[in-house]
Amino acid sequence: MRRDIFTADHEAFRQLVRNFVAKEVVPHYTDWEHAGQLPRSVFEQLGSLGVLGIPIPEEYGGAGLADYRYNVVLQEEAARAVVTLGTVRTQLDVVLPYFLAYADAPQRERWFPGLAAGKLLTAIAMTEPGTGSDLAGIRTNAVRDGDHYLLNGAKTFITGGLLADLVVVVARTSHDPDDRRAGLTLLVVEDGMPGFSRGRVLEKMGIKVQDTVELAFEDVRVPVANRLGEEGAAFGYLGHNLPQERMTVAVGSVAQARAALDTTVAYVKERQVFGSPLSSFQNTKFELAAVAAEVEAAQAVLDRAVLELVDGRLSGADAAKVKLFCTEVQARAVDRCLQLFGGYGYMLEFPIARLYTDARVARIYAGTSEVMKVIIAKSLGL
Amino acid sequence: MRRDIFTADHEAFRQLVRNFVAKEVVPHYTDWEHAGQLPRSVFEQLGSLGVLGIPIPEEYGGAGLADYRYNVVLQEEAARAVVTLGTVRTQLDVVLPYFLAYADAPQRERWFPGLAAGKLLTAIAMTEPGTGSDLAGIRTNAVRDGDHYLLNGAKTFITGGLLADLVVVVARTSHDPDDRRAGLTLLVVEDGMPGFSRGRVLEKMGIKVQDTVELAFEDVRVPVANRLGEEGAAFGYLGHNLPQERMTVAVGSVAQARAALDTTVAYVKERQVFGSPLSSFQNTKFELAAVAAEVEAAQAVLDRAVLELVDGRLSGADAAKVKLFCTEVQARAVDRCLQLFGGYGYMLEFPIARLYTDARVARIYAGTSEVMKVIIAKSLGL
Amino acid sequence: MRRDIFTADHEAFRQLVRNFVAKEVVPHYTDWEHAGQLPRSVFEQLGSLGVLGIPIPEEYGGAGLADYRYNVVLQEEAARAVVTLGTVRTQLDVVLPYFLAYADAPQRERWFPGLAAGKLLTAIAMTEPGTGSDLAGIRTNAVRDGDHYLLNGAKTFITGGLLADLVVVVARTSHDPDDRRAGLTLLVVEDGMPGFSRGRVLEKMGIKVQDTVELAFEDVRVPVANRLGEEGAAFGYLGHNLPQERMTVAVGSVAQARAALDTTVAYVKERQVFGSPLSSFQNTKFELAAVAAEVEAAQAVLDRAVLELVDGRLSGADAAKVKLFCTEVQARAVDRCLQLFGGYGYMLEFPIARLYTDARVARIYAGTSEVMKVIIAKSLGL
Amino acid sequence: MRRDIFTADHEAFRQLVRNFVAKEVVPHYTDWEHAGQLPRSVFEQLGSLGVLGIPIPEEYGGAGLADYRYNVVLQEEAARAVVTLGTVRTQLDVVLPYFLAYADAPQRERWFPGLAAGKLLTAIAMTEPGTGSDLAGIRTNAVRDGDHYLLNGAKTFITGGLLADLVVVVARTSHDPDDRRAGLTLLVVEDGMPGFSRGRVLEKMGIKVQDTVELAFEDVRVPVANRLGEEGAAFGYLGHNLPQERMTVAVGSVAQARAALDTTVAYVKERQVFGSPLSSFQNTKFELAAVAAEVEAAQAVLDRAVLELVDGRLSGADAAKVKLFCTEVQARAVDRCLQLFGGYGYMLEFPIARLYTDARVARIYAGTSEVMKVIIAKSLGL
Repeated sequence: MRRDIFTADHEAFRQLVRNFVAKEVVPHYTDWEHAGQLPRSVFEQLGSLGVLGIPIPEEYGGAGLADYRYNVVLQEEAARAVVTLGTVRTQLDVVLPYFLAYADAPQRERWFPGLAAGKLLTAIAMTEPGTGSDLAGIRTNAVRDGDHYLLNGAKTFITGGLLADLVVVVARTSHDPDDRRAGLTLLVVEDGMPGFSRGRVLEKMGIKVQDTVELAFEDVRVPVANRLGEEGAAFGYLGHNLPQERMTVAVGSVAQARAALDTTVAYVKERQVFGSPLSSFQNTKFELAAVAAEVEAAQAVLDRAVLELVDGRLSGADAAKVKLFCTEVQARAVDRCLQLFGGYGYMLEFPIARLYTDARVARIYAGTSEVMKVIIAKSLGL
Repeated sequence: MRRDIFTADHEAFRQLVRNFVAKEVVPHYTDWEHAGQLPRSVFEQLGSLGVLGIPIPEEYGGAGLADYRYNVVLQEEAARAVVTLGTVRTQLDVVLPYFLAYADAPQRERWFPGLAAGKLLTAIAMTEPGTGSDLAGIRTNAVRDGDHYLLNGAKTFITGGLLADLVVVVARTSHDPDDRRAGLTLLVVEDGMPGFSRGRVLEKMGIKVQDTVELAFEDVRVPVANRLGEEGAAFGYLGHNLPQERMTVAVGSVAQARAALDTTVAYVKERQVFGSPLSSFQNTKFELAAVAAEVEAAQAVLDRAVLELVDGRLSGADAAKVKLFCTEVQARAVDRCLQLFGGYGYMLEFPIARLYTDARVARIYAGTSEVMKVIIAKSLGL
Repeated sequence: MRRDIFTADHEAFRQLVRNFVAKEVVPHYTDWEHAGQLPRSVFEQLGSLGVLGIPIPEEYGGAGLADYRYNVVLQEEAARAVVTLGTVRTQLDVVLPYFLAYADAPQRERWFPGLAAGKLLTAIAMTEPGTGSDLAGIRTNAVRDGDHYLLNGAKTFITGGLLADLVVVVARTSHDPDDRRAGLTLLVVEDGMPGFSRGRVLEKMGIKVQDTVELAFEDVRVPVANRLGEEGAAFGYLGHNLPQERMTVAVGSVAQARAALDTTVAYVKERQVFGSPLSSFQNTKFELAAVAAEVEAAQAVLDRAVLELVDGRLSGADAAKVKLFCTEVQARAVDRCLQLFGGYGYMLEFPIARLYTDARVARIYAGTSEVMKVIIAKSLGL
Repeated sequence: MRRDIFTADHEAFRQLVRNFVAKEVVPHYTDWEHAGQLPRSVFEQLGSLGVLGIPIPEEYGGAGLADYRYNVVLQEEAARAVVTLGTVRTQLDVVLPYFLAYADAPQRERWFPGLAAGKLLTAIAMTEPGTGSDLAGIRTNAVRDGDHYLLNGAKTFITGGLLADLVVVVARTSHDPDDRRAGLTLLVVEDGMPGFSRGRVLEKMGIKVQDTVELAFEDVRVPVANRLGEEGAAFGYLGHNLPQERMTVAVGSVAQARAALDTTVAYVKERQVFGSPLSSFQNTKFELAAVAAEVEAAQAVLDRAVLELVDGRLSGADAAKVKLFCTEVQARAVDRCLQLFGGYGYMLEFPIARLYTDARVARIYAGTSEVMKVIIAKSLGL
């Protein structure tokens, strides 16, 4: 059905992204997968094109368009070409909102131009070994020492940590035994600060183009001027951006489920089995029809939520419903589609194999399906 | 999420229906179920309230509002009270469109006032023993004899056939060996015409309030003046209304899935198990959260399709996707919800048991899920 | 695959039951469904045939064969004819074990001949309004008064309660605040005892041939001579028989899933759709193949458990796994099979509709799937 | 439940394999995964231990035990340690049966000692680019030329092709337009024969330790003495071994599903979430209980089929049911288990991630689930 959430501006942007992906991403993608990361140059190119600056105020080189639909288009066009823009997406959808919301004037001066230009790469460091989704259990520690914080601790599962110039670290600056959520603070650690080091690069099942690393902080002296927002307020900040972080996963899931469908429809028309095109078998038709119906539903509920997010009224529970549902649709879609490829579906040279392994994390990151259910159940009064 | 498809007029209508259902339907519903049909008086009451005349032109006593959203509201409000308005729904959503589209001026004069007033009850007779969904295989026969057709044949699975004053019969008026779809004609058989008789009332698993009967036609003389539309054009007419017929099932499915969710959420909060409310168990929360997420998705895709239907641009394939998906969501929802009732869920006095048995037909009538998949697959070029 | 759990004796018994079902059950079954119960005469016939006396010692007119495989055969042969022997099964599989295990010599004299002959019908009364599966919460009260107990309370969901001559009532004879499981006792209430009355007959979604009623006890004077086993020991007794009660559900589930498969395979070969037999469509083949594979697995795990039960070494956790799995297979099987019947599947005159509605309770009674999971999880050390 | 298919000899063999896996496989496994193949030395070690010679007659250095249960034990013990013995399994379960059944006396002399000793590694080359499961469509061509065949063609998806000393090639030696199954012959191509070359090593989603390669044959002169069995008889030979090939996948699936369950049960007991062990959450318990029930069923049906295979009476349809079912159980098990690991489940250093990616091929190779359904449906008369 017709999607009614985009304007002509979004569609123009879509064309720009589509061209970029076709020319600058697709030809190199396998190399980047083997390298395990996107090159810095992609960020710079996207900076030049204005993609990275869309939500950044014009005075700092951006377009000043606080409109999440541009982010949607970006993911959709990547998925259409069966690639992902891993850390670009994280930067735009997950990290940048903290800078936009909480950076003070001097910080804006220092960082926004670089962010818009694709010269400053970012990451956010929340998870610690052992804490999982339990932010309140964070033990990375920042002790105020004059105009610095002395930062100690370890983080893991940090997307984009390998190249990040600026890492937003969630650290504990005080401890309130009655309120585990209090006392968390966002500190921006810069590449090269003494005591800041990268640990292992974690080997993942999929999304190979997106690096995931461990970070360590040993007596890192972080200037108070690098604090984002108020001391002790991070728990609220993090919660505030969660609906968008979850939506960004859902957007990817729907776009990739659609890509799986499209690539499989094309494949079954070409592929001959026992002398007939695979598309002529009723099982093929029925499997793909079932996938198409679910993708249509996922698209509809996603688009409704995108509009709510853009309007600033998307609740946490609704974002959770959308993430839960869309990631499950993706999981079913990639599995059913892959099956139609037979043995080829298991070979990484076929995009469906990549779509399959990439998909498995969607039900996990930005809050697992179980966490989504906890949130939804609360909204039902349970 | 907020539904944005209704106007203030629809909401006023919703209030009217809600009151009617609460006062005039709910108290009698169990009796009607045991009787196996709605009483004529319900039609007359709905006629007086203007409900049955909504799409009928004002000159015949209707409101002249060709807006399917009123039909949506009607089903939603019935479902909210965990009842269905069986044959009322069929009359409005399935049969009336043929009268509205194809009745000529004299027919409008004869029938529209009665239809609007709830004095004329209707049914449509398509399926024959053995033909199933294969309209082209219809063998009920109408031979032109002067200004009459001589009608012979048998029909089955006729919803509302028991009380129908007017039965729209799909009959074969000619036979073209090269085009099985040609030669079908709509004839309006009136109650009391010699040779027209009701056969068995079929005992169904659920939707007990909606009668389903066999009809027989033995040399029934049907005036040519009772023909709806052109001779031989019925196949096209029937196809034209299919998207709406499928949507009406989908609308019911989503509304009833939501009713299942609501009644179960209420139940688990009250019900104590091993000394704790059932709602306090994680399994309860997770099951209902999963249902809620699916219902949200179904609502979104349904609403998008309703708008397309109202705008006259809903494709057959999109209607098929929506029916397929929404009826499956309903099936999963009622099953998961019923399970939380334990033994009570199996007792018909609990509405969830009714929702469960009613639901099973949704994946079957107005085109089975398999037929939906055939249609969707075609739209994918398969 | 070949089942290796039966001997020639079992197969001879199978033949006897098969004939009985064909001649004495099938022709009357629909009537019994409408009546809502099996007639006493069926018990008497089965008594004459020796079926009801199989596990009863020879001195009381039985065969003295403590071999659960005869019970398996009985259910299988009923299911093969797409009927159930509702309360017969309950008597043999669920109630009789308590008499066999705990009746003292005088009780054996009084009751065993009648049980073997089908003259004494039985029921067991555990569940109370509000307690559900929580036996420890039982409030029906028996106070010792000389050589009687004064029994007060209410029970619900009592299978076979309508005709039962002997009702085994689980009653609380003492209250230990530290051990909710202590203080439960089995008392045999006889039809006609003053103060013992039947309440409502509950209307169920399916298994219509098996009555389910409420029972009330108001100052019923039950002789101490009617106590089964030790005072206060009932919780242990009930737990001891649970694996067999669960197996009996699983046996029915597998047999009925197989019946669904068989009846559907036969149907699709006959039924013509769009000019071809329904069996010629790939979707039909694939759906039934999937069902067949699951039924094969269910049969294998069931048979393994039957042997363990017969050998007296079936654990509660393994019985739970088997019940959980087999009832889920049944649920999927009846749903998939029914779908292939199209509209006919929704009509109660088609056995598949009965198989569908009968099936829904299997995941609920004798311990819900959730209770099974609790038991299994414990066995995993969780 | 107790498995009753093994004897003391099998259990002694189990102990031997378990020790070998622990000492000689586990410590090197990650290296082998990165290398993309097992080293030859593993074959030689297994040869020395007598594992590879079990079914080979004693006169050639084997044990002469034609008992598939040893193969079962081998896979089970590998899975218990969350490794696979990739090409060892293929050699024993898939390739060796052709040598055992069809090698003539001179071939036995030439090859059996090396096969038993682990000095001769093997592969079988069936699939060609484009033919998939359609053996009858094979185009690799062998033309008789005196006492040689001149072999030309290309094969793909060849497991173990990288190190194979002997490749059993399915080639077309004649063409009968009326019987596409006629005219196929097995030829043993030896490493080093001129014109025989390895093509690309295909990069797979999982089972990294098992190489999968393309092979090419350009005017390879294969002596007639290297023909296995009769000319033109290969289609029948291949069909004859299919049940065992499918069983071998099912055996792996069940063993790996069990490994997933075990590793996850252990993990959730240790892992703390929000201050409690993950095992204390009801969702965790219920998910793992559901997995355990399915694994129990899979084990039962598998064991029944193993006995039938050992007895030489396992039908193709029953093998198909078992493969279909067990691979689906595996798929559901690894998915549900992985989810409980959260983000760790996506990291390849956690065995569950390997179990997940390894599992996806099980529904595909040795005949896809769709092919299994075709076979099962035929056995139902559909």
